[in-house]
Amino acid sequence: MLNQSRRGLGGEEAAVNAINPSAGYAIALRVELQNAPGQLGRLTTAIGRAGGDIFGVDLVEHHGASLVRDLVVKCRDEVHGQQVAQAVGRVRGAKLVSATDRTFELHQGGKIAIVSKFALRTRDDLSMAYTPGVGRVSMAIADDPARVWDLTIKRNSVAIITDGSAVLGLGNIGPAASLPVMEGKAMLFKDFAGVDAYPICLEASSPDQIVEVAAAIATGFGGINLEDIAAPACFEVEEKLQARLDIPVFHDDQHGTAVVALAALINAARLLNKKLEDMRVVVLGAGAAGIACARLLLHLGVGDVIGLDRTGTLYDGRSTNMNPWKQWLAENSNRRGLNADAAEALRGADAFIGVSGPGLVEPAWLGAMAKDAIVFALANPIPEIMPEQVPKNVRVVATGRSDYPNQINNVLVFPGFFRGLLDCRARATNNEMKVAAARALAALVSDQELAEDYIVPSVFDKRIVPAVSGAVREAAEAAGLART
Amino acid sequence: MLNQSRRGLGGEEAAVNAINPSAGYAIALRVELQNAPGQLGRLTTAIGRAGGDIFGVDLVEHHGASLVRDLVVKCRDEVHGQQVAQAVGRVRGAKLVSATDRTFELHQGGKIAIVSKFALRTRDDLSMAYTPGVGRVSMAIADDPARVWDLTIKRNSVAIITDGSAVLGLGNIGPAASLPVMEGKAMLFKDFAGVDAYPICLEASSPDQIVEVAAAIATGFGGINLEDIAAPACFEVEEKLQARLDIPVFHDDQHGTAVVALAALINAARLLNKKLEDMRVVVLGAGAAGIACARLLLHLGVGDVIGLDRTGTLYDGRSTNMNPWKQWLAENSNRRGLNADAAEALRGADAFIGVSGPGLVEPAWLGAMAKDAIVFALANPIPEIMPEQVPKNVRVVATGRSDYPNQINNVLVFPGFFRGLLDCRARATNNEMKVAAARALAALVSDQELAEDYIVPSVFDKRIVPAVSGAVREAAEAAGLART
Repeated sequence: MLNQSRRGLGGEEAAVNAINPSAGYAIALRVELQNAPGQLGRLTTAIGRAGGDIFGVDLVEHHGASLVRDLVVKCRDEVHGQQVAQAVGRVRGAKLVSATDRTFELHQGGKIAIVSKFALRTRDDLSMAYTPGVGRVSMAIADDPARVWDLTIKRNSVAIITDGSAVLGLGNIGPAASLPVMEGKAMLFKDFAGVDAYPICLEASSPDQIVEVAAAIATGFGGINLEDIAAPACFEVEEKLQARLDIPVFHDDQHGTAVVALAALINAARLLNKKLEDMRVVVLGAGAAGIACARLLLHLGVGDVIGLDRTGTLYDGRSTNMNPWKQWLAENSNRRGLNADAAEALRGADAFIGVSGPGLVEPAWLGAMAKDAIVFALANPIPEIMPEQVPKNVRVVATGRSDYPNQINNVLVFPGFFRGLLDCRARATNNEMKVAAARALAALVSDQELAEDYIVPSVFDKRIVPAVSGAVREAAEAAGLART
Repeated sequence: MLNQSRRGLGGEEAAVNAINPSAGYAIALRVELQNAPGQLGRLTTAIGRAGGDIFGVDLVEHHGASLVRDLVVKCRDEVHGQQVAQAVGRVRGAKLVSATDRTFELHQGGKIAIVSKFALRTRDDLSMAYTPGVGRVSMAIADDPARVWDLTIKRNSVAIITDGSAVLGLGNIGPAASLPVMEGKAMLFKDFAGVDAYPICLEASSPDQIVEVAAAIATGFGGINLEDIAAPACFEVEEKLQARLDIPVFHDDQHGTAVVALAALINAARLLNKKLEDMRVVVLGAGAAGIACARLLLHLGVGDVIGLDRTGTLYDGRSTNMNPWKQWLAENSNRRGLNADAAEALRGADAFIGVSGPGLVEPAWLGAMAKDAIVFALANPIPEIMPEQVPKNVRVVATGRSDYPNQINNVLVFPGFFRGLLDCRARATNNEMKVAAARALAALVSDQELAEDYIVPSVFDKRIVPAVSGAVREAAEAAGLART
């Protein structure tokens, strides 16, 4: 019933989530009520007093003196869910029939399924979908391998590949525990962009093994979405895999985040009349997202980019806690060769992009940034600094959270990005596609709409996928990476 | 349009398919007809005269003086399809608008898709299916790995894994060309048994590589269906993979065929009052299906089993053209140690099971078999001997074809077999499950129904999956291989 996971997501998250009840912690209550005036009001009042946020009420049964109702109530966390259920149990004239964790209920048996595009009702159907008819289709592909794009699922299929080594903010929880996340990703692919994505959760012990397995299974897919693979393995996996395959490889934790962040930065600069080439941008975090953000900012021509990890700024000549990707960044960014901590690096900076950890940034550091500063605190679910704590010189704040304005969410990018890649049967990805996607996403916010609390469109904006996919497709064609 | 594959399936097959038009070679014709009495009759007569078999007629448009109709016509092969289309074009008052290959039309864009089990319409939906809600589900699995069976797609998912090295009768056509076959298999899994199966077509260069890749991706699946992997690699792959995994591994080309053949043999023996333990059964072909059939017959206690490959009988001491699986069979079958060719091996035998190649058996060899002989000529699409050529002492004949009685088709087994494995979350397969499945399948033919031309149920018999899955599940429980 309730309290299905023995440990939660850690005290810090619980504390922050306490701010607002979330559907992620919703409970489904079945309640038998006396059929009397005011009874439902007493029930909902009790739930509200307990801090629950009702977002659905259904009538299940009605037999004479009593009614059975189902309610779905958002709670702050699992303990709060139990408190709400107990409060319902104490309402006069109400009997709690059951209380279940809505999220766990929805996950029973998984979230995706395979369907046949047409039914097999007769022997004739079998003869066409399977033997003997299918033999001719297979031979057509054997004769002309390019026909696999027409005659199979390849043209709309993406493999979501993970080793479960860096899942959400949960760390290295392994392939089995990562599967619900990958299924969720597959749902997003389908519901937002009509892409058929299948989760492949790998038991793998090295970057090379991930590359070998992914390369071996790639034939049936039109693209590879790498997901939740820890840095720096993720860089090596992506580079080696793309070098081996003739389909695009895209590590969403890197590039999905980088593209949305870039789109948001483009719009924040537009709002504040700043020029990207004149800006100094500090990127905190040199993992997957941090390295990718910094690289894309440099590619776009941002004036000065300074990357930091927990050791401090990345500068040419630094020797501790390095890897080849940090080394590249050290050599190609940080114009002044600044060797400093985050507080010092932020002094006078125009923008801050945090892709690091919860609560790592002090308000005073941001206070020392330039006038009309831009702060993207993207650590999830707990940002580097909560929006309420940001000083007045900061004009635009974005986070990864849905309960604050300006949500920097990868779902703004990856469905449309892969839609575009599949539509043109792309051979690879490149930086131009990412920049084009960011510009297309940014352009969806009109001059009239653009505001401090509205720099990126809503994730449910139906224009996003056509805009992003079109931009990616054009960039692929321009680079000669499109097959069609 | 028509004639989409440059080469056909070889002259021999074309010759045999000429016997009957098949939906596998159907064409879809769009025809504009004068709206006059007798016009449709003229059209259908012309198609019939050209040898086409009409199995669908629809009215598309009706505007004044003319009608547009769609017809689907079974043909014998691609050339015949063109002839039928030409015949239609010559009908007075009829205009051929288009002629397309129905099988290729159905394969456009592939035959399966991924769907979400519930819609993502609001932020609340996202919070439950994806972050933050999904994080709790992932942590529940990290805390208790067994919960992956409840909270993910694993409990209903099968990976269909192939390297494309022995696809249907087409040989080593590679992973891309095998994909339409694997998609067809996934359709059968879903439509017959509600199993979510996904095709994984491997670029692999050795049995060990197939094992490594399959083991690495197994986490997200409740079972592995190996498919169309050439012998003897298939034996090694299956054994090594099953030894490494805690989910069942089942090579359908081996065991699907063996189980149906065994069911058919059980019923043929029942019809003819033969006892399996007194029978001598000759198995021609020592590939995947042949070895598996012989092993299962031995497991069931058939009196004498004699295996043959193109070199001759397998006997203890034979040294040419051997492998470890043939060696096992040589040591555990062929009681009399017969060193002979197929003609001699068949002399006096009660049953023949051919899983070899087209036309390899002479009528005279079968004439020398015992009274009331049983012949399963399962080479597909062209049997070892056509049913018309079988001599009178043979009472029961079965083939792999749908256009003759007694079709020995793997689809009678694998959907229900995996349904049973998944239902009990089996850790592995064993021979007892296969025998149980064969007995359950055989038992679906009642004493009243049992006849020379009815020894196995129709593939569309709805009782098959419950019967086979129940038998597999019971056998798994009896062997301690069931998790539930």
